[in-house]
Amino acid sequence: MFEVIGERINTSRKRVQAAVADRDADYIINDVKQQQQAGAKFIDVNAGARIGHEEADMRWLLDTIQPVCDIPLSLDSPDPAILEMAFAMVKMPPMINSISLENERFNAMMPFLSGKDCRVIALCMDDAGMPGSSDDILGRAKTLVDELNKIGIPTANIYVDPLVQPISTESSKGVMVLDAVRAIKAQFPEVHITGGLSNISYGLPQRHIINRTFVSLMMDAGMDSAIIDPLDKKIMATIKTADMLLGHDQFCMNYLKGVRAGAIES
Amino acid sequence: MFEVIGERINTSRKRVQAAVADRDADYIINDVKQQQQAGAKFIDVNAGARIGHEEADMRWLLDTIQPVCDIPLSLDSPDPAILEMAFAMVKMPPMINSISLENERFNAMMPFLSGKDCRVIALCMDDAGMPGSSDDILGRAKTLVDELNKIGIPTANIYVDPLVQPISTESSKGVMVLDAVRAIKAQFPEVHITGGLSNISYGLPQRHIINRTFVSLMMDAGMDSAIIDPLDKKIMATIKTADMLLGHDQFCMNYLKGVRAGAIES
Repeated sequence: MFEVIGERINTSRKRVQAAVADRDADYIINDVKQQQQAGAKFIDVNAGARIGHEEADMRWLLDTIQPVCDIPLSLDSPDPAILEMAFAMVKMPPMINSISLENERFNAMMPFLSGKDCRVIALCMDDAGMPGSSDDILGRAKTLVDELNKIGIPTANIYVDPLVQPISTESSKGVMVLDAVRAIKAQFPEVHITGGLSNISYGLPQRHIINRTFVSLMMDAGMDSAIIDPLDKKIMATIKTADMLLGHDQFCMNYLKGVRAGAIES
Repeated sequence: MFEVIGERINTSRKRVQAAVADRDADYIINDVKQQQQAGAKFIDVNAGARIGHEEADMRWLLDTIQPVCDIPLSLDSPDPAILEMAFAMVKMPPMINSISLENERFNAMMPFLSGKDCRVIALCMDDAGMPGSSDDILGRAKTLVDELNKIGIPTANIYVDPLVQPISTESSKGVMVLDAVRAIKAQFPEVHITGGLSNISYGLPQRHIINRTFVSLMMDAGMDSAIIDPLDKKIMATIKTADMLLGHDQFCMNYLKGVRAGAIES
């Protein structure tokens, strides 16, 4: 079953930033409830946008969200001190968003992650920048899995983000990441594949149809999670439909439930 | 580049049957022009529904369509006598729709196809019925390709239809046909894969989103043609988008052309 990481609680979004600045708990609670209702499996929480306020904002967000949230949180920060504080506050083992192969982030995150009971998003990014080929993505994924295994994170708790790149820059960028996902899943059947999708359509018009079509292709390749807005009804409908078509929905139960709930329309 | 076989000129469609019965050339011409405009690469012509009239109806349809049609026709009949007549009338080498492994159809079609310059749709159907597994589909495809090769039809002119079956009957029916398409393309890289898509959603609500999502998965597996209604704007938009995402649209030119023409909307 596909796992949606709900991306909405992020202070880089204007409306959320205002709610956090005003300590408007009702707005945040309502948003989190809607994301859960729409089928999110994790709620991402990012308090990074108000410089100098990240610790206090993260603390307030966790205090606000946890009483109404039945699903694990995805703690989204590059700062291990913030993550340590947040990790101590959460009720369920969280997702950690994220580690990468960039030296500074890698060296900061590894001691924090060591021995922790958590899932982790592992970005195929290093100090040379974005990966340039399928093999490059696979190599980075392999390094991340190996290193995380060494500090006690099992492969089944690792969510590799292969880093989707804009197809407007080169027409092979779609196939590159699709091939990479297939290769990663062939080598590490237990690993999860996640990430944002909207980069694929960067620079092009009518982006939603591109993102939606792309998610079904990525799911076919082995992507089983994505960091998206669960209130985007059309992409959620496509995910439910593709899940059914790929054999993950016995008797079409989830699809039919989605139709009855008004979540899936032609 | 994906090839759409436009399915609209079929006397089993009420409006078309009425136009054919009334010899309403304007209606037929307008429909064919619209299908071409929407991007069809072949126009299927099926005159089978008015019992006792097939020969005269097919003749009139070809006389009516050919002067306004710049693309090849797909001659759609199980009757070799009708096909011989039609074959003699067409200006461009046609698609023949279709041969199968059902004894009666196979034995009737092989002498007709022998040595002809045409493309042919080859249905993975035999007298035992629909195929029951990916291997079964592959085996039938292989028999069809081998037999057609023997009578002078090159593999590149064969359009295998793996026969999409309803996912409502069994949740593995999607994966079964996707795997089969991958296996057929691995064994016969030059062969085309075509077929109807709407069977996948038979018995389920909100069928269009299922058909649309499925076509992108089938394209990823190797389907490069489909028998559909080119005036179904949403499925055509998905096909253009998936073609781009799969690396078949350099500089996103066709996608951007589609957006400018109003054919692609989010």
